[in-house]
Amino acid sequence: MGTLAGHLLPAIGFLVFAVYYSVLTSLALLQEQRVLKHPVLPGKLQGHRLFRQVSYEALTKVVIPILGIFGEYFLPLGVNRLQMIDWKDPRRPFIFKDNWQHVTMFGFFILSGVVDIVSQSHLARWGVKLERAAEALSFYVLVLLMLTHIENKSSLEIRVHLLLLIPSFLLALVLTVEVWDPNSPPFWLLKSWLALVLSSWMFQICEMYVPFTGQPWRAEDPMDHAFLTIFFCWHLGLAIAVLIIIYGLCSLWHFHHSSWTKTPCARYQPCPMESSGEELEKLKAETLAQDGVV
Amino acid sequence: MGTLAGHLLPAIGFLVFAVYYSVLTSLALLQEQRVLKHPVLPGKLQGHRLFRQVSYEALTKVVIPILGIFGEYFLPLGVNRLQMIDWKDPRRPFIFKDNWQHVTMFGFFILSGVVDIVSQSHLARWGVKLERAAEALSFYVLVLLMLTHIENKSSLEIRVHLLLLIPSFLLALVLTVEVWDPNSPPFWLLKSWLALVLSSWMFQICEMYVPFTGQPWRAEDPMDHAFLTIFFCWHLGLAIAVLIIIYGLCSLWHFHHSSWTKTPCARYQPCPMESSGEELEKLKAETLAQDGVV
Amino acid sequence: MGTLAGHLLPAIGFLVFAVYYSVLTSLALLQEQRVLKHPVLPGKLQGHRLFRQVSYEALTKVVIPILGIFGEYFLPLGVNRLQMIDWKDPRRPFIFKDNWQHVTMFGFFILSGVVDIVSQSHLARWGVKLERAAEALSFYVLVLLMLTHIENKSSLEIRVHLLLLIPSFLLALVLTVEVWDPNSPPFWLLKSWLALVLSSWMFQICEMYVPFTGQPWRAEDPMDHAFLTIFFCWHLGLAIAVLIIIYGLCSLWHFHHSSWTKTPCARYQPCPMESSGEELEKLKAETLAQDGVV
Amino acid sequence: MGTLAGHLLPAIGFLVFAVYYSVLTSLALLQEQRVLKHPVLPGKLQGHRLFRQVSYEALTKVVIPILGIFGEYFLPLGVNRLQMIDWKDPRRPFIFKDNWQHVTMFGFFILSGVVDIVSQSHLARWGVKLERAAEALSFYVLVLLMLTHIENKSSLEIRVHLLLLIPSFLLALVLTVEVWDPNSPPFWLLKSWLALVLSSWMFQICEMYVPFTGQPWRAEDPMDHAFLTIFFCWHLGLAIAVLIIIYGLCSLWHFHHSSWTKTPCARYQPCPMESSGEELEKLKAETLAQDGVV
Repeated sequence: MGTLAGHLLPAIGFLVFAVYYSVLTSLALLQEQRVLKHPVLPGKLQGHRLFRQVSYEALTKVVIPILGIFGEYFLPLGVNRLQMIDWKDPRRPFIFKDNWQHVTMFGFFILSGVVDIVSQSHLARWGVKLERAAEALSFYVLVLLMLTHIENKSSLEIRVHLLLLIPSFLLALVLTVEVWDPNSPPFWLLKSWLALVLSSWMFQICEMYVPFTGQPWRAEDPMDHAFLTIFFCWHLGLAIAVLIIIYGLCSLWHFHHSSWTKTPCARYQPCPMESSGEELEKLKAETLAQDGVV
Repeated sequence: MGTLAGHLLPAIGFLVFAVYYSVLTSLALLQEQRVLKHPVLPGKLQGHRLFRQVSYEALTKVVIPILGIFGEYFLPLGVNRLQMIDWKDPRRPFIFKDNWQHVTMFGFFILSGVVDIVSQSHLARWGVKLERAAEALSFYVLVLLMLTHIENKSSLEIRVHLLLLIPSFLLALVLTVEVWDPNSPPFWLLKSWLALVLSSWMFQICEMYVPFTGQPWRAEDPMDHAFLTIFFCWHLGLAIAVLIIIYGLCSLWHFHHSSWTKTPCARYQPCPMESSGEELEKLKAETLAQDGVV
Repeated sequence: MGTLAGHLLPAIGFLVFAVYYSVLTSLALLQEQRVLKHPVLPGKLQGHRLFRQVSYEALTKVVIPILGIFGEYFLPLGVNRLQMIDWKDPRRPFIFKDNWQHVTMFGFFILSGVVDIVSQSHLARWGVKLERAAEALSFYVLVLLMLTHIENKSSLEIRVHLLLLIPSFLLALVLTVEVWDPNSPPFWLLKSWLALVLSSWMFQICEMYVPFTGQPWRAEDPMDHAFLTIFFCWHLGLAIAVLIIIYGLCSLWHFHHSSWTKTPCARYQPCPMESSGEELEKLKAETLAQDGVV
Repeated sequence: MGTLAGHLLPAIGFLVFAVYYSVLTSLALLQEQRVLKHPVLPGKLQGHRLFRQVSYEALTKVVIPILGIFGEYFLPLGVNRLQMIDWKDPRRPFIFKDNWQHVTMFGFFILSGVVDIVSQSHLARWGVKLERAAEALSFYVLVLLMLTHIENKSSLEIRVHLLLLIPSFLLALVLTVEVWDPNSPPFWLLKSWLALVLSSWMFQICEMYVPFTGQPWRAEDPMDHAFLTIFFCWHLGLAIAVLIIIYGLCSLWHFHHSSWTKTPCARYQPCPMESSGEELEKLKAETLAQDGVV
């Protein structure tokens, strides 16, 4: 899918994910959570015992790539690319490499979603580590396949994808570090920012199919190459701005919400007189955390 | 040995090793061991005082490479490649470079096995660190020689070996980190997975000598290059599947075994009334671990 | 601004910054501070409530790049380069790439200055981390744009800028590490030294516009290339010398100053008889630090 | 000095250093020292107050490079290469690049020696960190200059020097890490081994000037390139063997020496009955350490 549509779907997918993750991070920071909680689907939607807890995030990771895989194989309607070797040709050549590359990428994101579901339902101890490892793996696979993807392309296309690899690889690295240190707020922020950069740069790639100036980008023009990197830096700044806006909105919501509904409820809580100071503080933190979420 | 047999031996060697190591890791995780224990040969097989404790692992590391070295020099039967310089030629050229490369790789794995034996028999304090360091060194040597090995080869062969270097180099890195932090379960899992990827990818190289489609791989076809990377990503997933299966079988064995023989013994354990709360808790945890879930 | 003036402004900017930072670091080490304090402007200069505390450093980071941006767009006087696309040309080409690259670099240093101001005025907890992250980002952007900047230049110009990237990238890395470990004196010294190397190497680039020998550097002469690296190593040593001189002057000032005003105050300190040995020792250490060697 | 002599001097220099350092490390491990002590020259040789404590190591670092610099400029006797620019030539070209490169390398090793002397005499707190940093810097400079050094050379010469860079760069990295963690025995061993590899590989380079086979190495022969890497791996193993031999000799000396002279002295030491077990153990460790050294 070297088309506008083929880039728009992952761009939107990553954007939804990045914004959602930024909101989660902002709220976690505002409520001073120690652990980043992933809201789960309401209970009545989760029939089966095997899937007791499915987070929105995990569901999205499974559903959007499945749409993508369907698109790779069967869009435009009528075609069927679900084969790897052209058996009619006596040389038995491989076919549809781009589609199989994209399907493989999508597949590892589905794997990450499945790991999330299983881990959130069944694994108490190792869950978070496995989730981060599976996420990291999907980004490493993304990087590896993207490096193959850009072979024999124009130097402009190579550069635009290499710049895409910067946030992807950094995300993979951060997720790898999070396997060992999952509850570090600076990493949450870094991940949010990198995910915003990634999705915003995917939209830039989409723009290159329908350029603003009405003139196509020139594949071999050094001027166009140079401006591509400049624009990438601007996207880095843009992602900071988006993150600040999301954090601002979340903090507005947080302070409005907590002052409006939750203070009375917290006020009438029986005071644990005998508990030690440390326990009291822990309780207070928990109460605050509960206030913010509901 | 740029032949099927030459790749099959290390492939099988790494597979045996990877499966064995995955079983050890799975059992260690199930039994919540703090230290990964390496089962040793039964005592009566170990005659000499110098080799009091020889682990299966160390023995394998010594025996398989010795077979490999023999094969390099004397297979097919009748040849003798045990020379480095062709003294008859007045230019005194080096000969049999591939064989000497392989022999060097095998040699460092033997070294790692010898370090294991010596360390497990005689060194109490520094043992684990030296074992990990020697293992890491054999993989670094593997990487270094492989980089030389692929010079002046076809681009397909270069790529297939470069992809082999990814798990090798990561294994070397993980083993290096383990010199400082040897008892970290996430590293055990990572090593098991990387070893499975390594051996599974060696089988892929074997497949390229007897391709499924009946048509040879084309050394310069970009389509074949692209699919090679796709297949590598699939092997990453395959290794995860194999690891899950091994873990599943081990946990079946573990729970069956522990419910059958160990529970009564745990049940009649005298209750240490006077011990401090901490000791009691530790004991309880141990009992639970032995009982498992049953 | 591929001119002497265009390199002189950042050279002077970095030099001022590097010397200022070296002085701060030296004093912090001499006074055994745990946290590197950034002196702020005197209160009466800070009218508005929004900017309660503005450090000299933050102000410099904002003012000098604004001068730079002005120079990029409007110098020499009369020109106006404040456009990105030449709309008159039917191909709509990008124009003034070098200027937009420089402006983007300057922009991220301004961002870092703004983050400093906001963080020093309003953020108690996350401030230092965000300041370091923004500084690191400006150096990463510097590196990324410099890599684009040197495309299609002569190999001598490529090398001189690649050598400039070494301290820049190391600075970015050190600043990234400081996000997690901001109060480590070895990093302060390392940063001071790298900043001195950076500015001193920028002066070397200026020298290449007005060579001492009267003969221009030859872009393709291997001899000139080799000596460029040699000179870079000498700049490494020069920066050490400058750092030692700055530290020496600071220690002279520090001991003179502390012996003149502080000693009596320390001498008549009432002895805390009842305090525990640990507290006493801490106090003693502080007194010694104040007294210095005198 | 692209000659046998020019490579032999640093080879011997590094060998002396590597063996000396291996002996120090071995003794430190045998005596279970926490800090690697550097023996200093006997007091009567140290006249001046400024140089109260000069370690053998520091002296060597200063003296051998000074010999090297002398050789670069004035050997063979009669020449004088102490100029950088050929003023007679109207183009004012740089001259003697190789010599200035070597002199710069030597210069940074002298700097490291001077830092050692100053730090061991005057700096109590920061000394070890600065010594390691200066050592690391000299190896980074070595790497940087070596990279320039091999430009426009034959591919065989490039490879032999690239392989030399592996231990050099790793030494630089280990020394950098030691700035933060100077008292870690695994790093001492790693440094000893890398230094042995470095010097042993320098002797390999010397061998290439007087080849064993009587036939010169062929600069463009892939067979010779391949065997170069194989030999490098053998040098890795050789350095392990040398390290084991040195350790063995040191342990012989250590146990012989401590059983012969020191046990009685330790035996009649008055037993501190009242001290706690922990203190007793510390005392014992100190006694052992003192026994070993004298």
